[in-house]
Amino acid sequence: MTSLTSREWALAARPVGMPKAADFQMLTGEAAAPADGEIQVRNSWMSVDPYMRGRMMDRESYVPPFQIGEVMQGGAVGRVTASGHPDYAVGDLVSSMAGWREAWTAPPDMAMAQKLPGDSGLPDSAFLGIAGMPGLTAYAGILRVAELKEGDTVFVSGAAGAVGSAVVQIAKLKGCTVIGSAGGAEKVAFVESLGADACVDYRQATNYSDLLGALQAAAPKGVDVYFDNVGGDHLQAAIELAKPFARMAICGMISQYNNTDAAPGPNNVIQIVGKQLQLRGFIVSSHADMQPAFIKDMATWIASGQMKFEETVMDGIAEAPTAFMGLFSGANRGKMLVKLG
Amino acid sequence: MTSLTSREWALAARPVGMPKAADFQMLTGEAAAPADGEIQVRNSWMSVDPYMRGRMMDRESYVPPFQIGEVMQGGAVGRVTASGHPDYAVGDLVSSMAGWREAWTAPPDMAMAQKLPGDSGLPDSAFLGIAGMPGLTAYAGILRVAELKEGDTVFVSGAAGAVGSAVVQIAKLKGCTVIGSAGGAEKVAFVESLGADACVDYRQATNYSDLLGALQAAAPKGVDVYFDNVGGDHLQAAIELAKPFARMAICGMISQYNNTDAAPGPNNVIQIVGKQLQLRGFIVSSHADMQPAFIKDMATWIASGQMKFEETVMDGIAEAPTAFMGLFSGANRGKMLVKLG
Repeated sequence: MTSLTSREWALAARPVGMPKAADFQMLTGEAAAPADGEIQVRNSWMSVDPYMRGRMMDRESYVPPFQIGEVMQGGAVGRVTASGHPDYAVGDLVSSMAGWREAWTAPPDMAMAQKLPGDSGLPDSAFLGIAGMPGLTAYAGILRVAELKEGDTVFVSGAAGAVGSAVVQIAKLKGCTVIGSAGGAEKVAFVESLGADACVDYRQATNYSDLLGALQAAAPKGVDVYFDNVGGDHLQAAIELAKPFARMAICGMISQYNNTDAAPGPNNVIQIVGKQLQLRGFIVSSHADMQPAFIKDMATWIASGQMKFEETVMDGIAEAPTAFMGLFSGANRGKMLVKLG
Repeated sequence: MTSLTSREWALAARPVGMPKAADFQMLTGEAAAPADGEIQVRNSWMSVDPYMRGRMMDRESYVPPFQIGEVMQGGAVGRVTASGHPDYAVGDLVSSMAGWREAWTAPPDMAMAQKLPGDSGLPDSAFLGIAGMPGLTAYAGILRVAELKEGDTVFVSGAAGAVGSAVVQIAKLKGCTVIGSAGGAEKVAFVESLGADACVDYRQATNYSDLLGALQAAAPKGVDVYFDNVGGDHLQAAIELAKPFARMAICGMISQYNNTDAAPGPNNVIQIVGKQLQLRGFIVSSHADMQPAFIKDMATWIASGQMKFEETVMDGIAEAPTAFMGLFSGANRGKMLVKLG
């Protein structure tokens, strides 16, 4: 058992507005030979996700902030290279929160490690996307939080993203009409290829009225469900489009994450009363109890070809900040990943 | 059986911003002797309510707009003066939606008339307030929509109003800590006299920070439930104060009803995600199934002295527009009523 050198990313400075390269700092660490109860893992993939922007801020939140100069955390999958833990053997595939680094050594619990099935037929990277946290986010959000019913008309913003693209497909599988929004012709085509009945290119909308008009044309009778990944104008348009008793799963607001000042909220919140709308924010970890049903359904859907997923892959640990920053310029189609192995 | 002369209020013009006297026009009508299936009623009380402002606008909504030149509608109670309907006798007490007038003749269903108990021990006017629509709004909103639980810390805006003052008392009866907001020292004292643990005078707050600071001082650990009658800064402050998983019953936004332009929404809607908040708009008519339980509970609470209510009474049909306009300047404590009989 030998130690492994690990290149690792720390936060160099708290980003102000859009994150930039200088906000990140590469360190060189070492994943020691594991002591009793520890495992040593070489990560093959790491995840970058929009929620990480929140952890870069120094504020109270549902997860503690990243500390300046310390290695960041995030989803990763890798293989056990040495084990001091009876439940783990060399070669086991594990997911963990020990991302932003090439290798690590820790007790599995401390790294929030989970052993993954070696025989799933899925590529390892899927456990960071469609079969991982973004997939469960989509599943719990649309089925439980938004209380999806067959026949609903559903609007999904950020429909080409890791979460959004899964939401589109789950809603179609459940017999719904699905309207998406995405940025650019290529993503719109991707969303339509997933089965969406229509997809609006928000980059073609030069202002809010344009966006609203395009969505109204796509859903002339309004929407029963909105799955929000974007916030801002998209949320306001969704409130405008909402039918009475519409339900909204508020999953994220990527349009807001880099704001330096508080942005005005939707100017039509008063419609929440008259239309009797329900808006529910949620975080995937509150729905961990759905994991078994999720894995079962998702495996079935993927095996039968009913659930497609795409990945945007950047190669090598050096690209991790670029991959992360790309989330905010819409550089990804499907899950954004960094290949390490 | 004779006809009754009835002074009646029509909308003369659609109000722009704050309603003014010239937006209303008094007509003189006649309540004819009732035909078969009709009843003739002399109203003794009529209600003015914030929701009526919405009906003065020409827009699609959950109730059709008032028409220019036509007599408006609203809650009223009165006594049957002549009856062509087998279920109604002279002297019966009835509630109806045939307000804004002194007398009327119609089939009971068309006027949305309901026979009221003559032996309730309650003053007739209570059926327009604590034992009527505002009371049921409070009851359904706090118990069902906001899913009130014993031990919750509850923030109620507009706590001195017809709905708010009932919410405060129901929440106290259910073992909660209750923080109210109201405008002016007299109303604050009233809210505290209802049992609220604290009440913030929003007129003492010269800006949003002041308001938020006062509320934070009153609820330093945050709130589990918000009952919104006010909107605007109050809603934004409630989102700021909200604990994780807080529930909000969005009942009304009186601060917004006279806006001529769309007002920016809360600048902190992003907290809906991280705090996993639930915001639910509602309209009392969707909760009519709670009426029997409401009447039973409310009668018990009033009889035992656990439920107090106040009324602000203006005298005579001529005062009806003034009473209505007074809702927006906070002229009422408890239910605003016009005495007709």
